[in-house]
Amino acid sequence: MRTLIRNGAILTMEGAEPELVLGDLGIDGSRVAFVGSPPAGFAPERTIDAAGGIVMPGLVDAHTHIAMSLLRHYADDLPFWNWLFERVMPAEEKLCARYVYDGSMLSLAEMIRGGVTCFADMYFFMDEVARATERAGLRARLSRGLAFNAPGDEAKLDESRDFHAAWNGAAGGRVLVDVAPHAVYTCPPAFIEKASDLASELGCMIHVHLSESRKEVADCLAAYGKSPVAHVRDLGLFRNRTYAAHCVHVDDADIAALAEGGVAVVNNPSSNLKLGNGFAPVGRMLAAGVNVALGTDGQASNNNLNMFEEMHVAALVNKGIEEDPTALSAYTALRMATIGGARALGLDGEIGSLRAGKKADLIVLDASAPHFYPRNSVTAALVYAAQAQDVRTVFCDGEPVMLDGAITTIDEAEARAKAQESAAAMTGGAGFRP
Amino acid sequence: MRTLIRNGAILTMEGAEPELVLGDLGIDGSRVAFVGSPPAGFAPERTIDAAGGIVMPGLVDAHTHIAMSLLRHYADDLPFWNWLFERVMPAEEKLCARYVYDGSMLSLAEMIRGGVTCFADMYFFMDEVARATERAGLRARLSRGLAFNAPGDEAKLDESRDFHAAWNGAAGGRVLVDVAPHAVYTCPPAFIEKASDLASELGCMIHVHLSESRKEVADCLAAYGKSPVAHVRDLGLFRNRTYAAHCVHVDDADIAALAEGGVAVVNNPSSNLKLGNGFAPVGRMLAAGVNVALGTDGQASNNNLNMFEEMHVAALVNKGIEEDPTALSAYTALRMATIGGARALGLDGEIGSLRAGKKADLIVLDASAPHFYPRNSVTAALVYAAQAQDVRTVFCDGEPVMLDGAITTIDEAEARAKAQESAAAMTGGAGFRP
Repeated sequence: MRTLIRNGAILTMEGAEPELVLGDLGIDGSRVAFVGSPPAGFAPERTIDAAGGIVMPGLVDAHTHIAMSLLRHYADDLPFWNWLFERVMPAEEKLCARYVYDGSMLSLAEMIRGGVTCFADMYFFMDEVARATERAGLRARLSRGLAFNAPGDEAKLDESRDFHAAWNGAAGGRVLVDVAPHAVYTCPPAFIEKASDLASELGCMIHVHLSESRKEVADCLAAYGKSPVAHVRDLGLFRNRTYAAHCVHVDDADIAALAEGGVAVVNNPSSNLKLGNGFAPVGRMLAAGVNVALGTDGQASNNNLNMFEEMHVAALVNKGIEEDPTALSAYTALRMATIGGARALGLDGEIGSLRAGKKADLIVLDASAPHFYPRNSVTAALVYAAQAQDVRTVFCDGEPVMLDGAITTIDEAEARAKAQESAAAMTGGAGFRP
Repeated sequence: MRTLIRNGAILTMEGAEPELVLGDLGIDGSRVAFVGSPPAGFAPERTIDAAGGIVMPGLVDAHTHIAMSLLRHYADDLPFWNWLFERVMPAEEKLCARYVYDGSMLSLAEMIRGGVTCFADMYFFMDEVARATERAGLRARLSRGLAFNAPGDEAKLDESRDFHAAWNGAAGGRVLVDVAPHAVYTCPPAFIEKASDLASELGCMIHVHLSESRKEVADCLAAYGKSPVAHVRDLGLFRNRTYAAHCVHVDDADIAALAEGGVAVVNNPSSNLKLGNGFAPVGRMLAAGVNVALGTDGQASNNNLNMFEEMHVAALVNKGIEEDPTALSAYTALRMATIGGARALGLDGEIGSLRAGKKADLIVLDASAPHFYPRNSVTAALVYAAQAQDVRTVFCDGEPVMLDGAITTIDEAEARAKAQESAAAMTGGAGFRP
């Protein structure tokens, strides 16, 4: 199928400076055929009018737990330990495959509506997340979260291996599988080493939480005499290509270790702020050459998968921390959410920017809302004013998953109803409360 | 005219704890007739189906400069002095009445779309802002920004007096007029005293910028040996009921002075972060008994008038600063944006919450987007997940200004085109650039 997207303001996200092409973009099969003017003989079977709108790469949500949509708006404004041990974990005890599928479908609808075309997810019952992702038409790196609480938990490594065998490269290559030792406070050193060996054996990436809270760092120092970053590095984790979520409480030595290890950091500003964990030093990490991507984290701690909001919050809070309005520019935030995320997930050769030959993972925004006027900088408009709901059309792997506001791959009413039912079974609630 | 809004989840914003009424709300003339169940004999001429949606008071944007929409996305990611002296002020030199009207109409459309029904605005050519506000159907406290740069500038006080005579109480009482000494760094002490006297003479309120930047505080200490708060207090400004924007760099003595003076603080987190000014100590101000409202500031430093985003950012950053997830709860953020804002503007007897007898300034949100599912806490959903574009219907003073996504009082296409034209005349730009 050949698609022509006409007359858009195309933000390519190629290069260190923003590039805007006013013109057309063609899709042939799963790939971008051209950006700018159609070559002679390009005969589209579908034409989309993007006049007055903005075309850009699909956003990459590089750290989330999409089935946690089931716990959205259920446990807010609570101390961390009450949140985790009295609300989140007791609810998760009731998780089953069906609930995870239902929660995932709700989140996939939310991601599509917000222009996310690729995400990295770590959770349980990952076959269900993979099934839902295949159905919804998005791209993902998926991993079974590995925590070692009891001797039998080593079987989770086999679960990861089986999940990799079943799903890596599935859905036409849209689904890839990684290994995910959850964190230093849930995985003893020998278990981290085994997870690391498994990733090397499978040739996949590592998805991990690192230095999210002050307590994690203090406990790790007390137990192992090292920061979480130094601890996992010394266990050999960074032998594997790694993307590490959070990295809030990292010092200069940690940042140097992340840079040297080629570790991509996934910044989750909304989650870090909402749980009271603080502000990650994004500016210092970028200055040290660390690739910093952006993620929403799960909806129990965000409470949405809105990457436009995440770009905005990242840009604002870093200017605030540094007391410098030039810190974390709009274009830097956009890079974190597109090509930076793609690079963090080892996919920058295929996605994250728009040029001929790359996968056609892209979005079209309606720019008719007042907040897009007057016409000035597109990058400023996207980061400082756009809303997720400005996204009208979404392509992933060359296929439309939303056309002019209508999701083509998910029955949204059914997704809402099923997620509501599964959530009620887990948490007891079934309607609005104050 | 009698309007019945049926089957909504009504967040009344009455009281210290959130109250949710599942049922109907009636409007009779300009006022709320009932909340809950219609009294016998209530015969509506208009019925709005709010089933599955949320009804709440209209939001109060307690500090902005709406004509600055003309400079939106025009000067971003710049050092403060370059932003102000090389971009904003040279453009503002070209301001005329027509541009201010055009910029205001664009902003009024944006505010209506985002559920703002009342705002406090300080700028120039305020007759035009008043005209636009009357036309758009919103409620506002307006003030001519007073800066004393040259001897002739005393005439601005007369301009303020004339503006008050012409517009205070106009548009059926929707427009009120205040006196606005701009800031301690633009108004010498004698001028602040004169502005203060004028407010006392007119019996109106004072709108002022206070302690926005470190430089303002340092310069004020150097010049007068006092912080900006202490300086204007000692000049007698707080004799008049005062709402003060920003208050970022305030110490405990300043906070005590604000509390003692009954000064309402308008927190502008997005603007303070974006310009690199930092984080206002909202938690400490609230703890000291200061009424803290919320505002967007103008679009040259935000870049939108999105109060849903402002609530979200306020809640997130204050949890982050205090490293406490219980800091600035969702309900506190909602109070800042509704009844707190109303109280800051001396209007809490009339607006800011929903109960029989108050003015019908209210909004209806469509809650069908994935981010409102599963159904749990409405306050969490509104602050941590809702988007401005979820607002579908807006009433101000009992009159509909938006019905199911269609603004009834403004021709939006015309407002966009005219704002574009005026902006181009000021800044030279006329289309998207990177």
